[in-house]
Amino acid sequence: MRDVAIIGVGVTRFGEIWNKSFRAIGIEAGLKAIADAGLAGDEIDGLFIGNMSAGRFVNQQHIDALIADYSGMASNHVPAVRVEAGDASGGVAFRQAVMAVASGMHDTVLVGGAEKMTDLDDASVNSIVDATADAEWEAAMGLTFPSLHAMIARRIIHDGIATREEIASVSVNSHAHGALNPDAQFRKAITLDTVLKSGPVAEPLGMFDCAPISDGAAAVVLCPLEKAKEFTDSYVKVAAVAQASDTLALFQREDITTYGATVAAANRAYEAAGITAADIQVAEVHDNYTVGGILAVQDLGFAKRGEAGKTFLEGGYQVGAGKLAVNTSGGLKARGHPIGATGVAQIVEIAQQMRGAADKRQVANPRYGLAQSVGGTGSAVTVSILEAI
Amino acid sequence: MRDVAIIGVGVTRFGEIWNKSFRAIGIEAGLKAIADAGLAGDEIDGLFIGNMSAGRFVNQQHIDALIADYSGMASNHVPAVRVEAGDASGGVAFRQAVMAVASGMHDTVLVGGAEKMTDLDDASVNSIVDATADAEWEAAMGLTFPSLHAMIARRIIHDGIATREEIASVSVNSHAHGALNPDAQFRKAITLDTVLKSGPVAEPLGMFDCAPISDGAAAVVLCPLEKAKEFTDSYVKVAAVAQASDTLALFQREDITTYGATVAAANRAYEAAGITAADIQVAEVHDNYTVGGILAVQDLGFAKRGEAGKTFLEGGYQVGAGKLAVNTSGGLKARGHPIGATGVAQIVEIAQQMRGAADKRQVANPRYGLAQSVGGTGSAVTVSILEAI
Repeated sequence: MRDVAIIGVGVTRFGEIWNKSFRAIGIEAGLKAIADAGLAGDEIDGLFIGNMSAGRFVNQQHIDALIADYSGMASNHVPAVRVEAGDASGGVAFRQAVMAVASGMHDTVLVGGAEKMTDLDDASVNSIVDATADAEWEAAMGLTFPSLHAMIARRIIHDGIATREEIASVSVNSHAHGALNPDAQFRKAITLDTVLKSGPVAEPLGMFDCAPISDGAAAVVLCPLEKAKEFTDSYVKVAAVAQASDTLALFQREDITTYGATVAAANRAYEAAGITAADIQVAEVHDNYTVGGILAVQDLGFAKRGEAGKTFLEGGYQVGAGKLAVNTSGGLKARGHPIGATGVAQIVEIAQQMRGAADKRQVANPRYGLAQSVGGTGSAVTVSILEAI
Repeated sequence: MRDVAIIGVGVTRFGEIWNKSFRAIGIEAGLKAIADAGLAGDEIDGLFIGNMSAGRFVNQQHIDALIADYSGMASNHVPAVRVEAGDASGGVAFRQAVMAVASGMHDTVLVGGAEKMTDLDDASVNSIVDATADAEWEAAMGLTFPSLHAMIARRIIHDGIATREEIASVSVNSHAHGALNPDAQFRKAITLDTVLKSGPVAEPLGMFDCAPISDGAAAVVLCPLEKAKEFTDSYVKVAAVAQASDTLALFQREDITTYGATVAAANRAYEAAGITAADIQVAEVHDNYTVGGILAVQDLGFAKRGEAGKTFLEGGYQVGAGKLAVNTSGGLKARGHPIGATGVAQIVEIAQQMRGAADKRQVANPRYGLAQSVGGTGSAVTVSILEAI
């Protein structure tokens, strides 16, 4: 297998982008990444797209062909692949793209993620999001995505792994970083009180524990590491990309206070990169609900069981506060969560950190950064590790 | 890159399978393929699923995790990927799986395709299928999938490439083979008159020019060629797997009497396999509408422009009739077309032909067989070539 490098990144503003269509935001991110790599579009020989449900959000299937076409790649008949894995769609698409270059089947690949969610009413959006839970054993019984995460939160509090305040502080951490990110959906710091007093969604989680409904797209360009210098001096090595699955329904797990798929994917990624959790200086983790941030930090090996929440509450995962900064982009909570885009946007943030291009949220002298993308309630997890060159 | 082999295949009956759920048919095909390969389920280290729209057909996204879970792979946290490319979803999933093994990232991979379409009323199904056309420039203008293919058929007749009777004979060819396939949805030979007098769908295409709405699943198991003998004596080499894209909307093509993506994918595949079209003895082609069969035979290089229809009408693509047999499974028309399953089911048929295991529809002493899967109106095409060992 060949080593793989990221040579360009692009991202749109995340938020309620009512003046641009799904295809427009997808193209915007892709063209930014291609320009950032210093390429002409016809140098791309493969395209991968992470997308959760354009078929339901904007009534468009077959968006592999759509994006290839509108990026000008149809004239070269460039192969295009759409990947879906619930919330982890972007992370899985990134892994497929890395595989394509590593295998030698492709040389210069664009991998994008995109979702346009705000064109529908909230009830329709929630029904689509709930379809990533188990339709027959969860959704049909009335369980929603928020209520599944609320059950995890209750159990975490019950078992003494984190307090309600510690869980809430994951949102405070993300918003503080979001205030530093011009592309974030919410660019405003908040206090713990804001989270605790926000309107209830599913007890104990409130509005500020939940990532918003968002539009947005992100993209990166990959090539073999040995060829990266031909294109740019500012490239980043893909040190590892791993994936793991778990049961679709939450009730089939022995322990819902840990995601086995995160643990498995992280172990595979650390082994492939030849490092440990202690080597990671910056991480983007899947805080679709605040409790997801607690699970992630614990399951990725950054903190012992019961310690993650304490560090969040103390502000220890802020840029400059400690050895590890978490969700410098603003995370899913403040940056926004256009589902298919999220996994790729995390890669964009970590790549920018590795390049020293993260502006006000730059961590000092990073060598390794990590992105974790979660589908369902931990049913599919990707863990990618990037290395500064 | 490593060479890749198919070591097991499995397929369900295609048809209106009202007594089994989506997940049940997906698992049935997968377990058959694993058993056929002589494997235990825990020897599989990667899973790829082609599926067009379970999110709309059965309200279930994230079926990567669903199938991994219900196949018993969640306990090993096996990575699972769902791929969508309209009608070509199964073909693209097969290519991703081959890439995974060729790259060395996976060793023993299960690739499946599944769709459950008959649980909804016909209007809902048609609306979902139409979503693989361009939502903004075709579907929004009232163009449906049948009417787009009818326009191609009209142009083909107008330009003298094939007559109405020759186009209709593609259906006769498929039904004759379907009568020999116990897993086919329609196992009855028909006459040209049946097609020509069938109820109109979109002029000039009638009911018998159109593939049915179907439920079904298919699966194959892959491993590195060098390891295939450890599992079975009856394996098949993947000689090539290629993919190409084209514009999503039909009006943006210079010529709608040829699919540029088929030509491009076929050329890439023949080059990779080191053969020409003349070396292929059996082919499964995408006859979702009869006119698709004419386009395929022409664009894959099996017949000169204007000659494909004549051979279909003469029965020249029947098993035993000539140098090339087409759609020995019954094709999409008679075997059935559960969208995500189709591309994988084609691979199953060609693999069985290469093994000499195709029973009454076996071609004599085959060395090379080909499968062509088409998304949209030629917006994404995969061409796979299998070689008998």
